[in-house]
Amino acid sequence: MKIIDIKENSIKLNLSLSNSMFSFKEMTTSIVKVDIDDGNKVHTGYAFNSTGRYACGDPMRKRFIPRLLNANDDMLLDSDGEIDTKKALQVMLVGEKPGGDMERSVPIGTIETALWDALAKSKNLPLYQLLANKFPTYNSTDRMFCYVGGGYYDVGKTIEDLKDEIKKNFDNGYRLMKIKIGGAPIKEDVSRVVAAIEAAGSPDRVALDANGGLSENNYLEYAEELKGFGLNWFEEPTHPSNFTKYNEFINTYEGAVAGGENLYSIYDFINLINYGGFRIGKDLLQIDIPQSYGISYFNEALIELKKLNWDVNRIMPHGGNQMSLHIACGFGLSMCEAYPNVFGVFSGYDDDYKLDDGYLKLSERPGIGFEGQNDLYELFKKIS
Amino acid sequence: MKIIDIKENSIKLNLSLSNSMFSFKEMTTSIVKVDIDDGNKVHTGYAFNSTGRYACGDPMRKRFIPRLLNANDDMLLDSDGEIDTKKALQVMLVGEKPGGDMERSVPIGTIETALWDALAKSKNLPLYQLLANKFPTYNSTDRMFCYVGGGYYDVGKTIEDLKDEIKKNFDNGYRLMKIKIGGAPIKEDVSRVVAAIEAAGSPDRVALDANGGLSENNYLEYAEELKGFGLNWFEEPTHPSNFTKYNEFINTYEGAVAGGENLYSIYDFINLINYGGFRIGKDLLQIDIPQSYGISYFNEALIELKKLNWDVNRIMPHGGNQMSLHIACGFGLSMCEAYPNVFGVFSGYDDDYKLDDGYLKLSERPGIGFEGQNDLYELFKKIS
Repeated sequence: MKIIDIKENSIKLNLSLSNSMFSFKEMTTSIVKVDIDDGNKVHTGYAFNSTGRYACGDPMRKRFIPRLLNANDDMLLDSDGEIDTKKALQVMLVGEKPGGDMERSVPIGTIETALWDALAKSKNLPLYQLLANKFPTYNSTDRMFCYVGGGYYDVGKTIEDLKDEIKKNFDNGYRLMKIKIGGAPIKEDVSRVVAAIEAAGSPDRVALDANGGLSENNYLEYAEELKGFGLNWFEEPTHPSNFTKYNEFINTYEGAVAGGENLYSIYDFINLINYGGFRIGKDLLQIDIPQSYGISYFNEALIELKKLNWDVNRIMPHGGNQMSLHIACGFGLSMCEAYPNVFGVFSGYDDDYKLDDGYLKLSERPGIGFEGQNDLYELFKKIS
Repeated sequence: MKIIDIKENSIKLNLSLSNSMFSFKEMTTSIVKVDIDDGNKVHTGYAFNSTGRYACGDPMRKRFIPRLLNANDDMLLDSDGEIDTKKALQVMLVGEKPGGDMERSVPIGTIETALWDALAKSKNLPLYQLLANKFPTYNSTDRMFCYVGGGYYDVGKTIEDLKDEIKKNFDNGYRLMKIKIGGAPIKEDVSRVVAAIEAAGSPDRVALDANGGLSENNYLEYAEELKGFGLNWFEEPTHPSNFTKYNEFINTYEGAVAGGENLYSIYDFINLINYGGFRIGKDLLQIDIPQSYGISYFNEALIELKKLNWDVNRIMPHGGNQMSLHIACGFGLSMCEAYPNVFGVFSGYDDDYKLDDGYLKLSERPGIGFEGQNDLYELFKKIS
């Protein structure tokens, strides 16, 4: 088995979207194609670098792709002569100074995820099934609970509009919705949460996401005001690396907190738990796997997290897309996110996906199954 | 005043150098040129992205340079109509998601440092003097203590060779030398340290640098073996973000520890102190300022660190170059590093620099004074 070609193109997202912290106006993403030859046939894998981090084709072409294409068999293959993704990761890391991970974890992870897509296709298996075979200690599944993200702020958007948005999502089969918080005066924000709970039916069907945007003056007021509500979780009350503020928020808020989508190494995940005050069995770690060195690195992270008694059922992937969904199913993670129609062709799942009482069943398409997402697949097919 | 042009070129370092953790074989660096017009004249500033992190012209050209060149006067100028570097930083940060800093802190900081070079030239002041004027609360100086780095491992290099290397550096005026540790069996490494102390004359004239490379099995053995030696500091005993291991090492070693060159945000600096066990008034924080968003961000960092009672005399810049030297002098930092002949044209100071009992006196050339480093300046002049 060998890697014969890797190509990247940069795509502009053209989104008008913004949250309390930043705008997606200029955002780009890398789409990647990896061709592998298994001796009988060439298989093509695809991936993209999720959302929120810019396209990264330049470091791919200058460092990571040539290292992979120049690696000899010993450096890349396992004892069965198949490509070992863990070895591929090590090959890409040669010549990289430790620390400052995101600059390399996003391009490396995107290539690594595309490699998994190709490998699963060479086995004619959906990715979650290949993951279940490779990592049998986890409780893999073909059916995943998916929450829906939304509840953005918008000019002229009323509380009634928010309730309608939530009801529409529940009509479409979702059973948990995450809405934005921290972008309006606190009194109005609390009214939005009260309305969201009413529309959803119960507080555990609502989660909040501050995107790290609560101010220095009011983050503990938010914690105090919302602590008794019984919401499913409160996400990123503070800057992703402000462990002191995470601690203070958690101590006041008491309910479940979530974070981690802007951390990119095992050390950072562990620090969030050890020093950010994240509580075992209660808080939620959210990891963007293709942006954090990819799937084999994620397995290493799970092993390290297990040593802290942090279980997969308190981990969910960041990124509401088909890659995250397969990874969540393969490793039996807590749940997956969905952002229908928010991030253009990069959000969502199969074109014909349908929620069943909050759950989504994976198709049996080989690999990640991007071939079931027509608009996205059209982009992938044009990578050159 | 306005920014009229910013250009970047990538330069291959062509170094055969390696430490216990990684090789510089493929390493590149970005050299940057910023032209500003102060109404009377165009002034050109230069900078480069130090060492250990790859060239980053692609994100400069796609995000940071166009944001600066498209900014209007209100977004860039202070009340005197001059370019405000703090505002320039904010302009470059528009559209950037918090966290994962290194991918942007290196390109942004390099551009910002070049901007300072141009600004100092427009005032006809050496950079340290402009810094002293802009940030008058610090004890600026035109004379800085510089230690010398070296003591690399090499095939066939004996302990006598190491002693000769140290003596030569002391003959050249240095009074403190940092050598590598962790790349040989521990017994041999301890002998190297004993020999280094003998050659240097006393233990406080020797520092050690493990580049994060001590193994899981022996890092506490290193701490135990070397704790009583009275060395000036022990640098990066562990991975830059492994706070738990930093704590354990510090508790066993007891002597002064240094770290931080692979951290890129104020939150990370603070976390190293709060959670890595760094001790106020004892340990040393090493910040690569042009790689960490630049000089105005460094001033913000100093303000936050001061709140933790962390003083400038326990901070030194990473990167033995003319940029770090001016910044160290402008802010009155503890000392500066020097790597004569190690990183090619990017290491070292003025071509005619001379140590005087460990101290280096800055020339009065306007700006950073790269014009006194002939080979480097030749590269800068060709940026197109």
